[in-house]
Amino acid sequence: MLKNDPLEQWDRDSFLHSSTHLAEFARGNVPQRLISGGEGCHITDRNGTRLLDGFAGLYCVNAGYGRQEIAEAIAKQARELSYYHSYVGHGTEASVTLAKMVMDRAPDHMSKVFFGLGGSDANETNIKLIWYMNNILGRPEKKKIISRWRGYHGSGLMTGSLTGLHLFHKKFDLPLAQILHTEAPYYYGRDKGEMTEQEFSAWCAAELEAMIEREGPETIAAFWAEPVLGTGGIVPPPEGYWEAIQPVLERHDILLVADEVVTGFGRLGTMMGSDHYGLRPDLITIAKGLTSAYAPLSGSIVSDKVWKVLEAGTDELGPIGHGWTYSAHPIGAAAGVANLQLIDDLNLVQNAGEVGNYFSGRMREALGDHPNVGDVRGEGMLCAVELTADKATRAALDPNDKTTVKTVAHLLENGVIGRAMPQAEIIGFAPPFCLTRDEADEIVEKTAKAVHAVLGAG
Amino acid sequence: MLKNDPLEQWDRDSFLHSSTHLAEFARGNVPQRLISGGEGCHITDRNGTRLLDGFAGLYCVNAGYGRQEIAEAIAKQARELSYYHSYVGHGTEASVTLAKMVMDRAPDHMSKVFFGLGGSDANETNIKLIWYMNNILGRPEKKKIISRWRGYHGSGLMTGSLTGLHLFHKKFDLPLAQILHTEAPYYYGRDKGEMTEQEFSAWCAAELEAMIEREGPETIAAFWAEPVLGTGGIVPPPEGYWEAIQPVLERHDILLVADEVVTGFGRLGTMMGSDHYGLRPDLITIAKGLTSAYAPLSGSIVSDKVWKVLEAGTDELGPIGHGWTYSAHPIGAAAGVANLQLIDDLNLVQNAGEVGNYFSGRMREALGDHPNVGDVRGEGMLCAVELTADKATRAALDPNDKTTVKTVAHLLENGVIGRAMPQAEIIGFAPPFCLTRDEADEIVEKTAKAVHAVLGAG
Ligand SMILES: Cc1ncc(COP(=O)(O)O)c(C=O)c1O
Ligand SMILES: Cc1ncc(COP(=O)(O)O)c(C=O)c1O
Repeated sequence: MLKNDPLEQWDRDSFLHSSTHLAEFARGNVPQRLISGGEGCHITDRNGTRLLDGFAGLYCVNAGYGRQEIAEAIAKQARELSYYHSYVGHGTEASVTLAKMVMDRAPDHMSKVFFGLGGSDANETNIKLIWYMNNILGRPEKKKIISRWRGYHGSGLMTGSLTGLHLFHKKFDLPLAQILHTEAPYYYGRDKGEMTEQEFSAWCAAELEAMIEREGPETIAAFWAEPVLGTGGIVPPPEGYWEAIQPVLERHDILLVADEVVTGFGRLGTMMGSDHYGLRPDLITIAKGLTSAYAPLSGSIVSDKVWKVLEAGTDELGPIGHGWTYSAHPIGAAAGVANLQLIDDLNLVQNAGEVGNYFSGRMREALGDHPNVGDVRGEGMLCAVELTADKATRAALDPNDKTTVKTVAHLLENGVIGRAMPQAEIIGFAPPFCLTRDEADEIVEKTAKAVHAVLGAG
Repeated sequence: MLKNDPLEQWDRDSFLHSSTHLAEFARGNVPQRLISGGEGCHITDRNGTRLLDGFAGLYCVNAGYGRQEIAEAIAKQARELSYYHSYVGHGTEASVTLAKMVMDRAPDHMSKVFFGLGGSDANETNIKLIWYMNNILGRPEKKKIISRWRGYHGSGLMTGSLTGLHLFHKKFDLPLAQILHTEAPYYYGRDKGEMTEQEFSAWCAAELEAMIEREGPETIAAFWAEPVLGTGGIVPPPEGYWEAIQPVLERHDILLVADEVVTGFGRLGTMMGSDHYGLRPDLITIAKGLTSAYAPLSGSIVSDKVWKVLEAGTDELGPIGHGWTYSAHPIGAAAGVANLQLIDDLNLVQNAGEVGNYFSGRMREALGDHPNVGDVRGEGMLCAVELTADKATRAALDPNDKTTVKTVAHLLENGVIGRAMPQAEIIGFAPPFCLTRDEADEIVEKTAKAVHAVLGAG
């Protein structure tokens, strides 16, 4: 920090930070870090320290930092018209253009997009649309939602309930009624004896179906899932998972909501995660990748099937009682248009797939044999290293040792940002799509060095 | 609309609009209107039609349209750093500066601000903080929240439950459990026989207290209210209202949440609505006026009393499990800093008070005596004209006549935007703070003309 910088005091005195130890931050015992600039995969803090951001902010700066094409689109929109609302048929050139671009990139059976601000509110919108839909369809009791342990779907009261991580429930009285959690598709963390991936997937599907039958299928409205578990540990689904799950949902007339906040617009090396795994979602949640976080904007994409019911609903009842002041905000929309264009122009989806693959491959080579590395996994531009006390038994490290936190701190001292994922000993990476092979090598080498420093060379 | 403009088709094919008759919009029977520019109190649509925006978007473009000072601040931030997160002690120069500026403008007993995106999520954050607080304080049963009929607090599942308007509940299964509604401070709409304003206020307070005692004060966590009812009809509180309500809350140890999304940062002619009415809130919700809608940003301001419990909570439990990816987004923060600065530099709070007063006064002169005008009311830069079938009995107009909708349509044809408020026959105005006396006169004259055209000269 700069000497006598008033910003540090202002921060400690005035700012309530997300996911922070509030008392320790206020006392000055959690470091303050102000970020002032960025370019490509690097950010610079206010002290001039340059860091290779292996997590792209919060897996959202997909196009990379400092993209002047997006900045100029934002600047132009700000100069011409910073705001108008999208209620009752209103909009802006940018928001309508983006709606068209989103629908061009969504699976064919999708119909319309509603724009919100962040991933949480987009999930909230999807819950509202589903409840409305089942009321219009005359099945008012079909309202419960099943999500998965280790899923992350937001931090609101209802969306934090969808989230299947205890940190987001504790002392907030969550999950609320009507949200149930089924097994996580976390093959590495299995504890039901030995199974192949296929067997594990079949077991997950059977557990889901048992829950549905226990509750009564007539009470279950939707199943909520990320194509790849994100905050819950960066876990690609085990082999055969989606093939086993989707028929269960179809059998019981349960909607599938694909939460593509992380996977949407290229992170898996395909435009949507649903394409990647052959998902046929009824609703899709999008956020981060839509604008590469250059401005807040999210979306709820509804399928033809859902849309038809919404039309019938408004024919019966008049205008739908839902909306945010900042829905389809023109600054976010302008950022989204420029971002999706840039991602196409620079072939960034392809790069995410190719360099992402290279990155996880190199990570596996560097750390796969280490006795304290239980798993190295990846899909597209997502990669995770899971630590263990014992490779053979996959026994957990003592949480009091804070091994992952220490490893990530070592990595940071060496100029690379990785993330200690919650509720497990997992180092996560989700770099911008423009990651080069050299940058991938640098992350891998420094991660290996950090693991060796904390856990020994193996 | 421009001839052969693809944007119209894209809009109808792809865009799910807020509060819209979806089927009719898709069929082309609800007009599309794309806004392309604005300056001061005027906006221009894509056909070149220029309109005097008497509602400042959705009472949010407080500083007026086309402010290049704010646009340039956004542009500069976008070029330097469009995004970094604010988790675990991270931030940006803009977000920390804005936190300081917000706290300088908040009542003295407030402590810290958490930044979100929109008004709904800021209210959601406040509910979460209150529940967390009462769990930390060891009173886990003190969780119910009382808001008011006609209150507007958002469109989420929980925040739409706080909202006390049927349109936002219908077919969404709202309100959810734990949210109760007490009487609206809507003196004009009273139906309990003749009372003075003071008597009506005392009755509202007695009704509130009766509800608290019925439910058990040990189950009621908070009372949620806008200083002036906004979407529920633009209704300043009757005389003595807040003086009667606050002691009831204090008596039962119930937190007061002031939803200042509309009133915050100057709309009543004072920096905060809480100052205006002598409120002593425990939490304050802010949004719209914080950035004048130039970019999405909202906030939850907590008092010293709440903050102390949050500190104790993190000392007991570690980091708080709450946050949004786009909390304190740097583009929103940069817009907020420039906006609050501009509002000071141009003395816009004072102008909102003075010209606002002039505006409602002129409206009262022009329409107060019309036999179908039951009430003309205002406070700061808020004004409403309430229509009636009979001035003496305050009898309602036949809703099938859609009198207000017709009046507002007439006004629009004459180049002025007013808003038909939901669930009553009320024409609402909430212009930008830079409204001139000439512009105020124009709105008044055209509103009178529209009322005369639809209801006769009286
Ligand atoms: C899959 C997923 N859904 C939803 C969200 C919530 O998004 P936000 O933080 O923008 O509310 C996140 C955030 O990380 C996410 O990863
Ligand atoms: C008083 C009040 N609170 C909350 C909200 C919700 O804000 P948003 O639409 O940004 O979610 C509004 C919106 O009009 C409001 O007027």
